[in-house]
Amino acid sequence: MDTVYITRRERFNAAHRLWRSDWTEEKNDEVFGKCSNKNWHGHNYNIFVTVKGKPLPDTGFVIDLKLLSDIIKELVVEPLDHRNLNLDVPFLKDVMASTENVAIKVWEQIEGPIREAGGELVKIKLEETENNYVEYFGGKAPF
Amino acid sequence: MDTVYITRRERFNAAHRLWRSDWTEEKNDEVFGKCSNKNWHGHNYNIFVTVKGKPLPDTGFVIDLKLLSDIIKELVVEPLDHRNLNLDVPFLKDVMASTENVAIKVWEQIEGPIREAGGELVKIKLEETENNYVEYFGGKAPF
Amino acid sequence: MDTVYITRRERFNAAHRLWRSDWTEEKNDEVFGKCSNKNWHGHNYNIFVTVKGKPLPDTGFVIDLKLLSDIIKELVVEPLDHRNLNLDVPFLKDVMASTENVAIKVWEQIEGPIREAGGELVKIKLEETENNYVEYFGGKAPF
Amino acid sequence: MDTVYITRRERFNAAHRLWRSDWTEEKNDEVFGKCSNKNWHGHNYNIFVTVKGKPLPDTGFVIDLKLLSDIIKELVVEPLDHRNLNLDVPFLKDVMASTENVAIKVWEQIEGPIREAGGELVKIKLEETENNYVEYFGGKAPF
Amino acid sequence: MDTVYITRRERFNAAHRLWRSDWTEEKNDEVFGKCSNKNWHGHNYNIFVTVKGKPLPDTGFVIDLKLLSDIIKELVVEPLDHRNLNLDVPFLKDVMASTENVAIKVWEQIEGPIREAGGELVKIKLEETENNYVEYFGGKAPF
Amino acid sequence: MDTVYITRRERFNAAHRLWRSDWTEEKNDEVFGKCSNKNWHGHNYNIFVTVKGKPLPDTGFVIDLKLLSDIIKELVVEPLDHRNLNLDVPFLKDVMASTENVAIKVWEQIEGPIREAGGELVKIKLEETENNYVEYFGGKAPF
Repeated sequence: MDTVYITRRERFNAAHRLWRSDWTEEKNDEVFGKCSNKNWHGHNYNIFVTVKGKPLPDTGFVIDLKLLSDIIKELVVEPLDHRNLNLDVPFLKDVMASTENVAIKVWEQIEGPIREAGGELVKIKLEETENNYVEYFGGKAPF
Repeated sequence: MDTVYITRRERFNAAHRLWRSDWTEEKNDEVFGKCSNKNWHGHNYNIFVTVKGKPLPDTGFVIDLKLLSDIIKELVVEPLDHRNLNLDVPFLKDVMASTENVAIKVWEQIEGPIREAGGELVKIKLEETENNYVEYFGGKAPF
Repeated sequence: MDTVYITRRERFNAAHRLWRSDWTEEKNDEVFGKCSNKNWHGHNYNIFVTVKGKPLPDTGFVIDLKLLSDIIKELVVEPLDHRNLNLDVPFLKDVMASTENVAIKVWEQIEGPIREAGGELVKIKLEETENNYVEYFGGKAPF
Repeated sequence: MDTVYITRRERFNAAHRLWRSDWTEEKNDEVFGKCSNKNWHGHNYNIFVTVKGKPLPDTGFVIDLKLLSDIIKELVVEPLDHRNLNLDVPFLKDVMASTENVAIKVWEQIEGPIREAGGELVKIKLEETENNYVEYFGGKAPF
Repeated sequence: MDTVYITRRERFNAAHRLWRSDWTEEKNDEVFGKCSNKNWHGHNYNIFVTVKGKPLPDTGFVIDLKLLSDIIKELVVEPLDHRNLNLDVPFLKDVMASTENVAIKVWEQIEGPIREAGGELVKIKLEETENNYVEYFGGKAPF
Repeated sequence: MDTVYITRRERFNAAHRLWRSDWTEEKNDEVFGKCSNKNWHGHNYNIFVTVKGKPLPDTGFVIDLKLLSDIIKELVVEPLDHRNLNLDVPFLKDVMASTENVAIKVWEQIEGPIREAGGELVKIKLEETENNYVEYFGGKAPF
């Protein structure tokens, strides 16, 4: 009767572009428009990580927020902040750097470590601008 | 394993009132209070439209955000922005202009066009003020 | 050495239009565009009222925020919230309801009462949307 | 086909600490860090209360927002605002004042009164800072 | 021709109360209302620190933001975050913990160190809630 | 007695880096840290443009916001949005792309056109992240 969801936000500022090397410049421009600019553009990303669980009797915590924050900072903010998502990030190598794909790949980075820390990752929300964001539930489709 | 939800926000500023012509002025005032002011009032509305799907292999997109934005702008912002929700909007004719009802009617306008564009509309969030908003999942009740 | 500025925010939701009865409909449309819609539109307005002074020795207050809030609520929120700025507001009668003019007229309403309450009104900021606002310093031009 | 979710936000500012009297000061400090400060700290809390239902034919409302706001103000804001969550709140007595637990206890306070008012409470979101919040669905786990 | 103002925001969460020990409880309650609660309440404070200067030719910086952030963190966030403003802070001892007074005292803490770091502190904005904040210009009155 | 300030916000998303080619990589890293990443990073920038004037008798406008928006979009958003500030922008050529310098250069682009449109540009606020922004008054120092 006491499942609770707790969410931690962290931030990172990164460059990226949407571009396929197997497409012509014309095709890239047609599909991706200004997002394909060869000299990159960038965003202030907000990432919201949600963990599900029952509050522990001793602490009232689903998960220690400091611990959750440390995991996100080490595995997401450190590799992505002030980086180029296309060039600098091993776990995004050969991945089209759409917000959707970045969210999926971030999930893969932190799902295990959060589980080891006693938490169950259930959602990642990745906000690219004030006008668009993606949500990823580990592939599940709750609605 | 890779269902992702993507959300686009658009905005419109509109006038409206809550009023039933089959009720007396006293009854309207009793039920709707200041929201029934005969000379109207208005809001800056935020609409968040969520589409579900799997990122396309070529683009990493669930749906092209430009396309989604264009659909919302044509079918929601154009008819509602700087309009009177009670008087100016064909698809709101004879509808009580509550936030709930506007959300339902907006769903009916964009569900088909989003489907034709290859997306699956799963949620509309309509924010009337910083203190209240409604969410509509096409009638489904995920929680 | 201890002049401090304190600001209180209040909110009101109102309808209005930009329209001159001495202009043709074409001229109104040309100058004011969709803002001239004869059936009105509306906004969630934020008003920020700034008072200058020295913190009182007993309380550490420039002005009691409860008192400042009460003045704004009585003289601004009560007459403007859920109203039509063009039709319902005695102190805006025959005033073009631009954000600029509303700010000036609001100043005239509250400057005296704030002075009587021991405060010095120095600025009104009136926000019409997340993308535009006006500031009025009682006609002064500090920059 | 017309289930809609409506959410009302209210706010309260409170002091609290995370502390177990059956633990040593060292243990408290080790687990709760600066949150265990014996002289308290505090937050501006945002509470978002979500009610599910079908819009009523007469009003287009799932629930009258004024009524929902009054319930939250009487049962949550009044007892928590400008209070100490550990010392001043009967319904939080002997409860570790984590955000998770406060959300659960707030649910217990308002679920019945909202039901009596004709609404079905389905979610409480309690925001402690801009970087963390919890969500509680009455113990259910929709995702 | 190139004076620029740069602002850094930091945050701290603290408890406080407004209370005079030389007043009766009744007088305190009459003047400070719920802010005088003997068991404290608290806020998420935002502090915005503004430094004026000419961008340095080498870096284009008025001041290194990392350096400015470090000064604020050491001299403001460290002593105030997760503290009781009335009890825990040496530089607020015997000071009525109004937002106005906290801003003035924070200025005194950081003005010198910022000057030593090559910057000129010109403004502190201290936000207590989304509805009120104070600004302090070192006692100057620019408007 | 009726000088009013009106502000319009626009947004652009761009990549940049802080880097001096006449410095070694070590020196760049020492001074600029992660901001010197050779593969760039990026931000969602908010630009607020403030124009001063007296409301025109006919319109109540200091300046037509549509006109002001068009000037900013043509001269700032178009050249900066989805661009690399170091590589793609003629008016930033050979300029260290600090927020301070970008603000100054943006002023130079729009001051004349705003004057020709009948307005007096008095302030640019350029926000790089939620934690830092610069303000530029054309070199003046109002406080």
